[in-house]
Amino acid sequence: MPTDIEIAQAATLQKILPLAHRKLGLPEDSLSPYGHYKAKLSLGQVQSLADEPDGHLILVTAISPTPPGEGKTTTTVGLGDGLNQIGKKAIICLREPSLGPCFGMKGGAAGGGRAQVLPMEDINLHFTGDFHAIALAHNLLAALIDNHIHHGNALDLDVRRITWRRVVDMNDRALRDITVGLGGPGNGFPRQDGFDIVVASEVMAIFCLATSLADLQRRLGHIVVGYTRDKQAVTARDLQADGAMTALLKDALAPNLVQTLEGTLAFVHGGPFANIAHGCNSVIATQTALKLADYVVTEAGFGADLGAEKFIDIKCRKAGLQPACAVLVATVRALKFHGGGDDIAALTEGLANLRRHVENICQHYELPVVVSINRFDSDTPEEIAQIEAACKALGVVCVLATHWAEGGVGAAELARQVVALCEALPRKPAARLYADEDTLELKIRTVATKVYRADGVIFEPRAAQQLAEWQAAGWGHFPVCIAKTPYSFSSDASWRGAASGHTLRVRELRLNAGAEFVVAICGDVMTMPGLPKRPAALNIGVDEAGRISGLF
Amino acid sequence: MPTDIEIAQAATLQKILPLAHRKLGLPEDSLSPYGHYKAKLSLGQVQSLADEPDGHLILVTAISPTPPGEGKTTTTVGLGDGLNQIGKKAIICLREPSLGPCFGMKGGAAGGGRAQVLPMEDINLHFTGDFHAIALAHNLLAALIDNHIHHGNALDLDVRRITWRRVVDMNDRALRDITVGLGGPGNGFPRQDGFDIVVASEVMAIFCLATSLADLQRRLGHIVVGYTRDKQAVTARDLQADGAMTALLKDALAPNLVQTLEGTLAFVHGGPFANIAHGCNSVIATQTALKLADYVVTEAGFGADLGAEKFIDIKCRKAGLQPACAVLVATVRALKFHGGGDDIAALTEGLANLRRHVENICQHYELPVVVSINRFDSDTPEEIAQIEAACKALGVVCVLATHWAEGGVGAAELARQVVALCEALPRKPAARLYADEDTLELKIRTVATKVYRADGVIFEPRAAQQLAEWQAAGWGHFPVCIAKTPYSFSSDASWRGAASGHTLRVRELRLNAGAEFVVAICGDVMTMPGLPKRPAALNIGVDEAGRISGLF
Repeated sequence: MPTDIEIAQAATLQKILPLAHRKLGLPEDSLSPYGHYKAKLSLGQVQSLADEPDGHLILVTAISPTPPGEGKTTTTVGLGDGLNQIGKKAIICLREPSLGPCFGMKGGAAGGGRAQVLPMEDINLHFTGDFHAIALAHNLLAALIDNHIHHGNALDLDVRRITWRRVVDMNDRALRDITVGLGGPGNGFPRQDGFDIVVASEVMAIFCLATSLADLQRRLGHIVVGYTRDKQAVTARDLQADGAMTALLKDALAPNLVQTLEGTLAFVHGGPFANIAHGCNSVIATQTALKLADYVVTEAGFGADLGAEKFIDIKCRKAGLQPACAVLVATVRALKFHGGGDDIAALTEGLANLRRHVENICQHYELPVVVSINRFDSDTPEEIAQIEAACKALGVVCVLATHWAEGGVGAAELARQVVALCEALPRKPAARLYADEDTLELKIRTVATKVYRADGVIFEPRAAQQLAEWQAAGWGHFPVCIAKTPYSFSSDASWRGAASGHTLRVRELRLNAGAEFVVAICGDVMTMPGLPKRPAALNIGVDEAGRISGLF
Repeated sequence: MPTDIEIAQAATLQKILPLAHRKLGLPEDSLSPYGHYKAKLSLGQVQSLADEPDGHLILVTAISPTPPGEGKTTTTVGLGDGLNQIGKKAIICLREPSLGPCFGMKGGAAGGGRAQVLPMEDINLHFTGDFHAIALAHNLLAALIDNHIHHGNALDLDVRRITWRRVVDMNDRALRDITVGLGGPGNGFPRQDGFDIVVASEVMAIFCLATSLADLQRRLGHIVVGYTRDKQAVTARDLQADGAMTALLKDALAPNLVQTLEGTLAFVHGGPFANIAHGCNSVIATQTALKLADYVVTEAGFGADLGAEKFIDIKCRKAGLQPACAVLVATVRALKFHGGGDDIAALTEGLANLRRHVENICQHYELPVVVSINRFDSDTPEEIAQIEAACKALGVVCVLATHWAEGGVGAAELARQVVALCEALPRKPAARLYADEDTLELKIRTVATKVYRADGVIFEPRAAQQLAEWQAAGWGHFPVCIAKTPYSFSSDASWRGAASGHTLRVRELRLNAGAEFVVAICGDVMTMPGLPKRPAALNIGVDEAGRISGLF
């Protein structure tokens, strides 16, 4: 099997404007081309679709993953191609990859094997510049904060209580903790600061939840950047930053359209972190796709305890989306990992993790589910049979998917099962694990007990104080976004399988008043990755014809 | 007269692909569209033009400017339109504006009045993403440096002698002097650092001097990032960073094509600082334009003592360009400023500045020159007559140009005079103020005495030591790039008119081993601007239709 980049570079792409016109009926002048194979759909065209009926929304999620991931993106792409293979009109919605990790360990994030979105190198590098625009909008606000303080600090911002950091789309550990404003009075007031990676920016989360330019500006204005010396919140609007930030983001907000290896259209737009943010592509892209296709396949971050929960409780709740069903991706590798070994006994043991996720999806997210085994060459028939038997006992369909090796044909059976579920059940609003009016504390406890199966939640003193303050300050109606390890149902990454009876310990909260959720941090959360000893960057090159090598 | 943005937004643009095909014969598939009105010309097409004959290259420069500038960019645009008005095939080559200053005081930098390149908002904001790519390539190298040190420092880099800073395209004074790597061993080794604005990056200078992807990578590899504890230079190639940096820049290196208000084609590509760098648009854009048109109008930074000298001694020398003539832009405002008053007597006095620049251009740059008065409404006939008389006495043509108010028609006479000069004289290689084999010290002394009319040069101890070291290390063949105030021939900004008999004091040198020049710093050089008390950002907004306001 050739590598991902070899497959991608050998592909013959179709020009995106005529492709989108032919397949989706989009007028070519509603699309702004970025090269011949990427385009942005104008926000005017997005708005003009508002009264069209919605297609079926299918969420691809996964069991608790191993560090390399279990193939959610390839399954999303493969299922989209598979739906088209069986004659359905389907669109894919994916997150944009972050550029930073390409130079570290991760390699590309545009699918893999025969299930990729193209042009692979562009999508993994600068793409249409959305992340650059988000970084600049974020950093403009940061510059305006320090500039305001330098020029008299009329708002009385407390330099010890500025919560707005800076961002760069790079894995750069040296920037995690820094001091700025050194060098004398001409350079402003010295203070502690730091950089996060762009995908961790609240601007990214806002961008992905905004429904229009006006909503984007409203949310940007609500960002809390810090506090005065008497602890009053100061917002981006107080600094008059929201207009210029929106201007920087106006082109970026139009969703990006590309194609898969098989010519299925895909929106690849926005990409917030899945721990301190909700980990889903933009609401604008998903809503638009639903107007243009009968089936829309999208993914959420990490496993179904984290990604799918945030998809339901943040994205669907806020955007009024009605998901039709879920695909739960599992691999033999991950199931054995959860069973703590590498034989069939470990696999049997590890199936507890799959069972738990199926239960959660059916009971708490109220979605019908298909289990999709992402087939590896090393899987044995006995292993597959074991998983199939477990699913049968659960009363859910289990499909073997081979899109990685075979493309859409390898996901045709998965596509048929998904269509059967979508057609069998009436549309209904998305589930809600908790009500808007529940307190922030109750919301966290609800997710912890229902989804993570914790016995209880401990709020460390700082978190308890923040809960009380923000509840009182009028932010209690926000959903919660829990940041914990994706490798376990508990907050202990080494507790594999189906942890229960544990205690969730909330260390601190973060207020995202613009994105409109409160983040509860359990354990360490890294918002600026580092590079490994031998970064992937060292192998990346480009020949005189402009052909990139070393991206994988 | 409406504002620049009002004129720009009222304009009807032509689609750039058919326009470039019709006017320049470029195949549409050699152009990569970025929206409908911006495109990049493929590097393959650039290469395929190599054997075509060159058109005439016209440099637009200026007398010593006042802080708001005297209209070089509008004259460049107006002259390009004017040449087309009189039936010549002309292309314009401009620098890309930096995004940071848009949010400070400066406003846009895509011309003004009826002499603008469009789409104005795009060019001033993210344009085609070139500056973002340059910033990322720069910051990738920075991350690889700290990562190398963190993971064992096999190259023995001295954390006290790292010269490679970080960059952001933002006016952010708080980032001028910072400490990084705080927070414990997981975040690397603490050290002093700082951010420059993107246009000050050596990657920008390299980008603008590179002639191909291979030349780009070669130059990036030669960047000196710091020194070992025994003072040996460490390069980007030693860190194996050059391949990934080139990959990040591969799309950016293709030159950007846009149009003026009158449909004249313009390459807007690259934009290095005019003090610590050479201040000219990319060599690739200029060389390509010369293959496609009979007349190519371009500009250099600041006044003719700085910008034109660097254009001749760095850009033309290295790229083998043969400029045909120069246009010297003057304004009544600036001439009065140099005369130290606001009446006709001051104007007469200030003409000494114009005379000196004319002499330099004719004698040292060996170029025929036309003086172009950039007409303001407040100019009186007496003032204009005074300038014309002075030019007559010098034996140079003087033209009144009204392109700002009238577009290309207002520069038609300027265009006719320029054509007359180009046709009267045979092609010859660009002048050289000094020979490559002269020492760095002699090169600095030559520019100081010939162009600035200094009596002598004093090298402060640090500069003298650097001169000796770099001469010995094999960098003596590089041209020099002198960073001094643009407001005076001397290094004292308040010494107006035609300073002579002064002493140039060189404080320190900077080695740009990738851009292949040595910077001599005289006085203070700001590589990270700050925002004013009331930044322009506070007035910038965007309506629901995506129309930007507040950019000017």
